[in-house]
Amino acid sequence: MKLTDHRLSEFLAAVRSPEPTPGGGSAAALAGAVGAALLAMVAGLTKPRAATPQDVARLAAAGAGCVALSERLAALIDRDSEAYLLVVAGFRLPKGNDEEKAARTARIQEGLRIATETPLDVMRASVEAIGHAAPVAALGNRHASSDVQVGLELLGAAVRGAKLNVEVNLASITDAVFAAEAGEEAVRLTSAAESGIAAARAAPANGS
Amino acid sequence: MKLTDHRLSEFLAAVRSPEPTPGGGSAAALAGAVGAALLAMVAGLTKPRAATPQDVARLAAAGAGCVALSERLAALIDRDSEAYLLVVAGFRLPKGNDEEKAARTARIQEGLRIATETPLDVMRASVEAIGHAAPVAALGNRHASSDVQVGLELLGAAVRGAKLNVEVNLASITDAVFAAEAGEEAVRLTSAAESGIAAARAAPANGS
Repeated sequence: MKLTDHRLSEFLAAVRSPEPTPGGGSAAALAGAVGAALLAMVAGLTKPRAATPQDVARLAAAGAGCVALSERLAALIDRDSEAYLLVVAGFRLPKGNDEEKAARTARIQEGLRIATETPLDVMRASVEAIGHAAPVAALGNRHASSDVQVGLELLGAAVRGAKLNVEVNLASITDAVFAAEAGEEAVRLTSAAESGIAAARAAPANGS
Repeated sequence: MKLTDHRLSEFLAAVRSPEPTPGGGSAAALAGAVGAALLAMVAGLTKPRAATPQDVARLAAAGAGCVALSERLAALIDRDSEAYLLVVAGFRLPKGNDEEKAARTARIQEGLRIATETPLDVMRASVEAIGHAAPVAALGNRHASSDVQVGLELLGAAVRGAKLNVEVNLASITDAVFAAEAGEEAVRLTSAAESGIAAARAAPANGS
């Protein structure tokens, strides 16, 4: 059963339980999914500031983008836990001879790549959602500005939380080129998130 | 139906929908519930650093505290949306004569108090959970330190997000004493959260 098919109360109980999954990676994806969902909500509220057809279209596009990103982040809640289990399954393979050892190492490394790509994707989707926050803040219903700000808090937590998961897995990856590229992308995405959050926080003051 | 009885996918769809509830207040409570749940998980993992009976007991107490706080925060997901609907219901009351106007104002103010107390309670519970993070980081399984850090990110977002909701509602509250006390408590809790997060981030380096 997919994690997102669980009742919210059951999902929380599963996080609390002394099992490693769902863990921080899935939690970061959930934070991003909720953050993007809040931006989508504000974009859809009645009585937006957007008055011209161009602004109405910009707000609608930002809202549609946030709906899609929230759905993508929701799928990453499950994918992160699956990736962790792939790594664990690799470690449980036999290592009786050189052939088995090589196969086991390859499976572990493949699992670690997926366990790195998944939080990287959480970072990418969250940064993209942060990019929609400025038009939503400037053009959406003015009474929902705290919802936009809470959305930004959650998306920021998602980016920083996912980055921690990228780094943990990168530390065990032996492909130096992949590790360097993924590490650099995580740094770039963190910086993009910070500047995007600052821009969106300044947006309402510039709005009509 | 309670929000926490919904499937996670349905809850996310409800946030995305162009209805004001569930909104930022419920989202902040959820972030806190997941953050506290991650700390509870790490406290319960096998192979903790805790070796002495005293440390094992300290870790278990922190874990039990985080389970209870996560459950309290989960209940606040629903309570925040209910409080918002109380305020809306107040605004919809008739205002045909002075008696009706006075009754309507009283109901709106009562709703706003509950809509302020609820995110304040999210802040209180999240700060309490942050207080458990240092022993969990220092005494829990060393391989789960990223889970502790993600938990802190989520608890920090919960505190800051809930504070935004306290402030939004305080702006419309006419009871100056209540407003001043609640505003001061929100500032105190934010500062307690920041110092608690900094202390917990320093904890693993001090651990064995």
